[in-house]
Amino acid sequence: MIPRDSVGLVRTLEFRLAEPADGLPLDSGGKLSPVTLAYETYGTLSPEKDNAVLICHALSGSAHAAGYHSPDDAKPGWWETAIGPGKAFDTDTYFVICSNVIGGCSGSTGPGSIDPATGKPYGMRFPPVTIGDTVRAQKRLLDHLGIPRLLSVSGGSMGGMQVLEWMMAFPDSVASGIPIATTARLSAQGIAFDAVGREAIMTDPGWKGGDYYGDRGPASGLAIARMIGHITYLSDEAMHRKFGRRRRNGLANESALAKEFEVEGYLEQRGASFINRFDANSYLYITKAIDCYDPAQEHGSLVKAFARGKAKVLVISFSSDWLFPTYHSKEIVRALKANGIDCSFCEIQTSHGHDAFLLECPEQTELIRGFLRRVRREARA
Amino acid sequence: MIPRDSVGLVRTLEFRLAEPADGLPLDSGGKLSPVTLAYETYGTLSPEKDNAVLICHALSGSAHAAGYHSPDDAKPGWWETAIGPGKAFDTDTYFVICSNVIGGCSGSTGPGSIDPATGKPYGMRFPPVTIGDTVRAQKRLLDHLGIPRLLSVSGGSMGGMQVLEWMMAFPDSVASGIPIATTARLSAQGIAFDAVGREAIMTDPGWKGGDYYGDRGPASGLAIARMIGHITYLSDEAMHRKFGRRRRNGLANESALAKEFEVEGYLEQRGASFINRFDANSYLYITKAIDCYDPAQEHGSLVKAFARGKAKVLVISFSSDWLFPTYHSKEIVRALKANGIDCSFCEIQTSHGHDAFLLECPEQTELIRGFLRRVRREARA
Repeated sequence: MIPRDSVGLVRTLEFRLAEPADGLPLDSGGKLSPVTLAYETYGTLSPEKDNAVLICHALSGSAHAAGYHSPDDAKPGWWETAIGPGKAFDTDTYFVICSNVIGGCSGSTGPGSIDPATGKPYGMRFPPVTIGDTVRAQKRLLDHLGIPRLLSVSGGSMGGMQVLEWMMAFPDSVASGIPIATTARLSAQGIAFDAVGREAIMTDPGWKGGDYYGDRGPASGLAIARMIGHITYLSDEAMHRKFGRRRRNGLANESALAKEFEVEGYLEQRGASFINRFDANSYLYITKAIDCYDPAQEHGSLVKAFARGKAKVLVISFSSDWLFPTYHSKEIVRALKANGIDCSFCEIQTSHGHDAFLLECPEQTELIRGFLRRVRREARA
Repeated sequence: MIPRDSVGLVRTLEFRLAEPADGLPLDSGGKLSPVTLAYETYGTLSPEKDNAVLICHALSGSAHAAGYHSPDDAKPGWWETAIGPGKAFDTDTYFVICSNVIGGCSGSTGPGSIDPATGKPYGMRFPPVTIGDTVRAQKRLLDHLGIPRLLSVSGGSMGGMQVLEWMMAFPDSVASGIPIATTARLSAQGIAFDAVGREAIMTDPGWKGGDYYGDRGPASGLAIARMIGHITYLSDEAMHRKFGRRRRNGLANESALAKEFEVEGYLEQRGASFINRFDANSYLYITKAIDCYDPAQEHGSLVKAFARGKAKVLVISFSSDWLFPTYHSKEIVRALKANGIDCSFCEIQTSHGHDAFLLECPEQTELIRGFLRRVRREARA
């Protein structure tokens, strides 16, 4: 039974980039061709085409941000809490678009796609991709949809990096940005966690240098990477409240090393479900894109990086997010303010950690709703 | 060249438990026999036998806490910063003892030891061991050394758990305790990190259900477990200062997924060196002992657990330690105070994270030195 405040049944569409004919130029120097972007849309584009909001997903996300793919779908899209009739991104008012990133494994071209040069999956022959590459591909999608300017672009975590990149790369094409729980450059600690996840995948004998398609692949390694991720997405307090030191009941395996704590069962289950829906090579490429995103290095400083920025900005962070801590958001805010950019900032008090942006969060809903209303009003004035 | 403030050349000794003749009773119900404890001592036991200090090691430690095993040793013992002439545990004044835990792999009986029932290494047939088991074995060692009462027992992290257990289990045999950077029960987050490390070891095909002795063993899995550990022993700020986002020079492998950041090289090196000195099965058993340590659960509450406690206590925590955060130390202090126990507490301000207790730390040195002087003075009065 699909809830009434959902966008309802949706399907993922495909956009094949035709321009330029020789492929999408990549930051790494090469070109990628062919390029497909998987995307979904919710709501209706206004005749003036001035109500489009682009949603950018995080590491493990996809184009399926809201609604259900079938009436008996167990789960809706990844940001169902925020996208739908009457929600933060109100689909009665806005035309919402979400696309899977380049390098992904949910319909967009990535390392699991067929390399036209060999007729086999790219694997590690897929070129390195960046946040900038994905944003340029998204721009092509919007051109294709006939949308000259976004009312807003928003996303959390890696999605927030795409928001920053949109404001830098296409300042005339975006009226506002809402980067959430993000950073303009990942910390050494964040890189370290990603690196261990990659190590787990690449030392799994099932990885086979990336050429595992058709086989089981590095399932154990990917599950371990996901488990590490999940710990970093929560907080000490959230894990204490959710699991504490509670034991599991009815353990089949009563060995000395049984996974006796509830938190162990949780991590095992999250790891096991992830390997059924995510490609390990995509995990490698996307975490690398996250680690390497660093507009301050590229432009000389974060202040210079935002020099062409015009979009109004709402920056949101969460008090217990230790993977993308509030001080990272404040660095973004300082660089925006230094450029005289219209910028609001709010740190939401919560114990939910980095994952807070994905959960029901009335404060986040109100902040986004109010901000979008103001941006739309001022854009029309 | 051995520094002048070192205890100098030392060697690891072995103590074979002879009493009771049928083996060491374990918390899990069984008995372990034979049992060997590897240990080292530094300084001289006073004729009154009233200057003995027991040092308890953390997860990856050993009996080799101070000094050098040979003149060309590259590295001294693991707590060289704290143990030696004129140091916090001043070997000109105190007789310092350190033993390897039961379940360890540095001379004490553990899963890599020969099971007399089969003539082969125990592997997973080694019984589950606890912090309490190790403390009872240490008590036998002290009986053997003819030391009726410790002037103090100290240790950081898991070593601090042993300190707490000493005060609970043998209140008449210990005049003081110095638990550092520790907890009376690991958090859900801490259990989660340990669980992922165990998963990395046990899903490594080289683990072979624990029967890998003579082979390479689960080297990749153990390295990954160690990498995860290292991230949790540091802090966001310490990693930022130590590595930031600096790139490595002269990378041999310029692939899309090269370990290009310095922090990646550091983790790789730490993982690689660990597999040469530590046994993966010991890692499993010892982390499990850490996860399961919970005197509050055993005794009904932490206040009740310390009901028989008499030792004077100095509790030390570190402001940036997020694995054993200060609030855990405060829980210990509250339970001690509720029992009217003489207890001092200090949170040392540092950015070094959990590892701070192992580093040069003048505040820690002064706190320990002053506390031990007072305890000795009062014990003699």
